[in-house]
Amino acid sequence: MSPSLTNVKAYAAPAAGEPLVPTTIERREVGANDVLIEIKYAGICHSDIHTANGDWGPQPYPLVVGHEIAGVVTEVGPQVTTHKVGDHVGVGCMVNSCGECKNCLAGDEQYCLDGTVFTYGSTDRDGTVTHGGYSTHVVVDADFVLSIPDTIELSQAAPLLCAGITTYSPLAHWNAGPGTKVAVVGLGGLGHMAVKIADAMGAEVTVLSQSLKKKDDGLRLGADHYYATSDPATFTTLANEFDLIINTVSANIDLNALFGLLDVNGTLVGVGAPPEPYSVAGMALASGRRSYAGSMIGGIAQTQEMLDFCGEHGLGADVEIISADQINEAYERVLASDVRYRFVIDTATL
Amino acid sequence: MSPSLTNVKAYAAPAAGEPLVPTTIERREVGANDVLIEIKYAGICHSDIHTANGDWGPQPYPLVVGHEIAGVVTEVGPQVTTHKVGDHVGVGCMVNSCGECKNCLAGDEQYCLDGTVFTYGSTDRDGTVTHGGYSTHVVVDADFVLSIPDTIELSQAAPLLCAGITTYSPLAHWNAGPGTKVAVVGLGGLGHMAVKIADAMGAEVTVLSQSLKKKDDGLRLGADHYYATSDPATFTTLANEFDLIINTVSANIDLNALFGLLDVNGTLVGVGAPPEPYSVAGMALASGRRSYAGSMIGGIAQTQEMLDFCGEHGLGADVEIISADQINEAYERVLASDVRYRFVIDTATL
Repeated sequence: MSPSLTNVKAYAAPAAGEPLVPTTIERREVGANDVLIEIKYAGICHSDIHTANGDWGPQPYPLVVGHEIAGVVTEVGPQVTTHKVGDHVGVGCMVNSCGECKNCLAGDEQYCLDGTVFTYGSTDRDGTVTHGGYSTHVVVDADFVLSIPDTIELSQAAPLLCAGITTYSPLAHWNAGPGTKVAVVGLGGLGHMAVKIADAMGAEVTVLSQSLKKKDDGLRLGADHYYATSDPATFTTLANEFDLIINTVSANIDLNALFGLLDVNGTLVGVGAPPEPYSVAGMALASGRRSYAGSMIGGIAQTQEMLDFCGEHGLGADVEIISADQINEAYERVLASDVRYRFVIDTATL
Repeated sequence: MSPSLTNVKAYAAPAAGEPLVPTTIERREVGANDVLIEIKYAGICHSDIHTANGDWGPQPYPLVVGHEIAGVVTEVGPQVTTHKVGDHVGVGCMVNSCGECKNCLAGDEQYCLDGTVFTYGSTDRDGTVTHGGYSTHVVVDADFVLSIPDTIELSQAAPLLCAGITTYSPLAHWNAGPGTKVAVVGLGGLGHMAVKIADAMGAEVTVLSQSLKKKDDGLRLGADHYYATSDPATFTTLANEFDLIINTVSANIDLNALFGLLDVNGTLVGVGAPPEPYSVAGMALASGRRSYAGSMIGGIAQTQEMLDFCGEHGLGADVEIISADQINEAYERVLASDVRYRFVIDTATL
């Protein structure tokens, strides 16, 4: 890494609940298996906001968040064979893991038993605190750097690294495809990707949203049907209908009502991050051998599989590109659900 | 059906919360596809007690409960080809279903969309109220009569019709077998069958019980390991250990602690009937792509499969045979967990 790059521009959360501010941070020198990435776009994920706000407990402030990173390789360490200068690459929610536990060996680095190193706020294996993508450059172990197909615009690719894999992983794991009926609860950043991906996989897709406000969008994104959960009739019309429900809503909604929409052997997968436990009636599951599951992002190999899938099907996120000085305003708009469907920061404006 | 049999001896719950009393009830005449069974033994299931007590809402009292029925065929209707006089047969939790909905057609009669007719307290398709197995005889549609292999004593076979299938079904559905690690929570009527069946399937079986009081029994029944859930160390020692957990406990225990014992992709299946909803932390599932599922008995074909499996492996329930006048005392003992492991009523004493 050239010495001039060890200090790079970034936007950081200075303390819990305070607005993000411009700063500079240190990136480590490029090691033997490292890749230096010039970040072009960084998506704004709801998790960034929770973390910056301290909603999920104390953080090592000042902290640079952002785990939907898309950019271009500008330097690689001598051992790197998988990426080269000029490649379009991405980094998602994790940048390291032990590589040796049963979960890492099974390709589930996100469930590393020794502790996954997340892209920000984690202690990396060299003892430093990780900082995320609201920054001009990042140095990442090559094993955690993904290749972005040329058919996806970098700005639209960035959100795939979290919103994309978070929805692709359960859709793939629970076999969404031709002949399956999939419902997506909530049409936000995660939900709009779930609709696109499930549709591309060949499933029959239904959006379950609080209202019909975004119905036109939902159908345009690939949904076959669109229902309002505020209408009680939805729960009788769609009883026993779905093989798979992807719940992208982070709030504490009524899961038991949703279980009733599952067919026998159906599964509802939660991919949001609800602040409180849910109330789950055992009989709502037992009355149809139904399952309630949780899923968290996806492993590195599956993330690459997702990017290749999206490249093949021409899928990217629907994004609104913002400049760095709009980040705090964008946070307010995300909290107000006023985004269709993902903000990405143009890091040239940092 | 001979006229003298239309009125048969039984023990009935006269009203919610009152002790059961001797009585006589009417059984219908043997129809074209019916089987008349002389009941030899009827198991006492916790569900009988809940129903008799009115814990699950109003019941059509006086009501004869009992859905673990083993007996001998004494008459068959002219259309019956699957059973003949003298056969050892059983009847479980259901005696009819629509036979036409997608769930019935898939062999999941217990999830009949038109309403499964349960063995007691249901309205049968002829409009009469169904009465269960605490009785000398019962008339059941041949499609809901199971064959009991000669290798199983009738008294030990009776509990298989509910406790056996309730545990066999999820063990089979979630692929318990060689190379899988299965935990059974609670060593009661359901739990002791889960241990026997999972062991016979070839799984490595661990019992998770409140205390080590029944450890010797657990190991004798087929468990490889036995841990107390009252010991906090259990939850660190066994973290991420199991592929499948069968929770047979009906009380509102801490599921989130149990989820931590599941390996990635593991499933906890509830087969008890908890009175209240559980508190489920989404992250306890998401942190290992875990599932919480529910399962209710099993279809008719699978119940026969279970009986054949038990016959092949010489499996029956561990029973304590009682006479009819001990039923109310047995109820008290079940509520006090003072039974190893199932009471069965000798119906000759009715």
